[in-house]
Amino acid sequence: MARRTRLYEGKAKILYEGPEPGTLIQYFKDDATAFNAEKKAELKGKGVLNNRISEHVFTALEGIGIPTHFIRSLNMREQLVRAVEIIPIEVVVRNVAAGSMCKRLGLEEGTPLPRSIVEYYYKSDELGDPMVTEEHITAFGWAYLDEMDEIVASSLRINDFLLGLFAGVGIKLVDFKLEFGRFYVDDDMRIILADEISPDNCRLWDIKTGEKLDKDRFRRDLGGEIEAYQEVARRLGVLPSADIRELAAHPKAKQADS
Amino acid sequence: MARRTRLYEGKAKILYEGPEPGTLIQYFKDDATAFNAEKKAELKGKGVLNNRISEHVFTALEGIGIPTHFIRSLNMREQLVRAVEIIPIEVVVRNVAAGSMCKRLGLEEGTPLPRSIVEYYYKSDELGDPMVTEEHITAFGWAYLDEMDEIVASSLRINDFLLGLFAGVGIKLVDFKLEFGRFYVDDDMRIILADEISPDNCRLWDIKTGEKLDKDRFRRDLGGEIEAYQEVARRLGVLPSADIRELAAHPKAKQADS
Ligand SMILES: Nc1ncnc2c1ncn2[C@@H]1O[C@H](COP(=O)(O)OP(=O)(O)OP(=O)(O)O)[C@@H](O)[C@H]1O
Ligand SMILES: Nc1ncnc2c1ncn2[C@@H]1O[C@H](COP(=O)(O)OP(=O)(O)OP(=O)(O)O)[C@@H](O)[C@H]1O
Ligand SMILES: [Mg+2]
Ligand SMILES: [Mg+2]
Repeated sequence: MARRTRLYEGKAKILYEGPEPGTLIQYFKDDATAFNAEKKAELKGKGVLNNRISEHVFTALEGIGIPTHFIRSLNMREQLVRAVEIIPIEVVVRNVAAGSMCKRLGLEEGTPLPRSIVEYYYKSDELGDPMVTEEHITAFGWAYLDEMDEIVASSLRINDFLLGLFAGVGIKLVDFKLEFGRFYVDDDMRIILADEISPDNCRLWDIKTGEKLDKDRFRRDLGGEIEAYQEVARRLGVLPSADIRELAAHPKAKQADS
Repeated sequence: MARRTRLYEGKAKILYEGPEPGTLIQYFKDDATAFNAEKKAELKGKGVLNNRISEHVFTALEGIGIPTHFIRSLNMREQLVRAVEIIPIEVVVRNVAAGSMCKRLGLEEGTPLPRSIVEYYYKSDELGDPMVTEEHITAFGWAYLDEMDEIVASSLRINDFLLGLFAGVGIKLVDFKLEFGRFYVDDDMRIILADEISPDNCRLWDIKTGEKLDKDRFRRDLGGEIEAYQEVARRLGVLPSADIRELAAHPKAKQADS
């Protein structure tokens, strides 16, 4: 692969300049972090699995008319995406109480919520991604109200679809995090779904056993992270074969960094 | 005063059964607490001042058509109010960044906000009054959406009025906290303003000097709390005379507890 410009290295992914203007290459690393990067590890093969799972989910969402940044898969760890202006808000949709919501509101983990709840967190590592409301978002100009209306409507559709997609393979979608961005075509601007959807930013519980098949295994030292992510990929029908996984553990892509 | 039933003792006030059904007596104590009651003190005369200030503000709000729980003043520390079913949400209106908002969003104290911002906190001492959104409020049934619409509209009117009222006496209204309740008359239900409006739950800065004339003096160990509260009362034209203050320091009301 040709030498190319690295634009951003995050905790889980690297963004490279894409082959055409307005495109990016999203490279999925094996790095895992939690608690605002206080806890770190390498989970061999995670990047390959998340790339595959996210690609699968984004393609399915395009299929129901949700515009996303996904263009096409490039290789085991990379996908070509539309470059967007990220809206600095993490949108969290919750169906069952878990994680920070339990602490915050004194709920027992696993309590089904009376209805799906949408929350917003301001993307800021220094501030620890504080929860915010549309009041803060619009007052500080992070997004316009009509953009947020579109984002909420889209997030609820995505939730319904993913609830179904995962239920179909015996998985309960407890909650998940989305990021949206502004995509400009000439004078036109559209809000599209960006980033990733994977066990790194969803809570996925086996419907029968309640077993956690997501990043909480890492956050809570439960072990078996890769096996859990593989199980999700397997059920979705996108588990890479063993020899491809072996290859993925020695990524060529990283050697081509500039 | 006749023996009467104490219904609730809070951190700053006591509620007694009122003389008629549907009424309560709100008694203002001198107790001051901060940081979820981790810090405590007695500020001699505070109750008298807050009772007077709150009564003055509530009367003025009634005058512009905001329905409140206030019926009439009873004595230096007590007011007769309508008993309501308190909506368990603290509504905070902010005009200038201060306090928890600065920490949360990394703003410098004193930064004027681009526009007034309304926030909600779930009233729960155990949970430390967590910030919540309309999503949580409606999903958990703490209030209906149309009730919240009414509460926001009312809070913004109150903000405009109080900005003016305090500006008129050289005070900048930085932020304040409101509580609302449901008041039932036969089959009718109305949302009315309850609790108190005083330097205990407003941030009030002298417009010229920036001097704090509110509970932050206590929270931040600045001293001169009573002098500051007196100054607010004086400017609003409701400072009790010295001998009445003396009387207030030896409240008879408390001896009548049952
Ligand atoms: N299509 C896109 N165009 C531009 N930026 C994108 C796009 N999709 C995702 N991003 C951004 O790329 C980065 C992905 O990297 P990664 O997920 O590792 O970041 P991170 O360390 O988690 O940091 P963050 O807290 O910002 O997500 C994120 O900042 C994400 O917002
Ligand atoms: N009109 C009213 N009817 C019923 N309850 C009221 C009314 N006005 C205020 N209250 C409630 O009375 C209590 C006043 O006491 P105080 O302000 O000391 O409570 P607190 O210790 O601050 O606790 P809280 O956190 O509930 O405010 C509050 O719980 C308040 O919600
Ligand atoms: Mg990320
Ligand atoms: Mg109170």
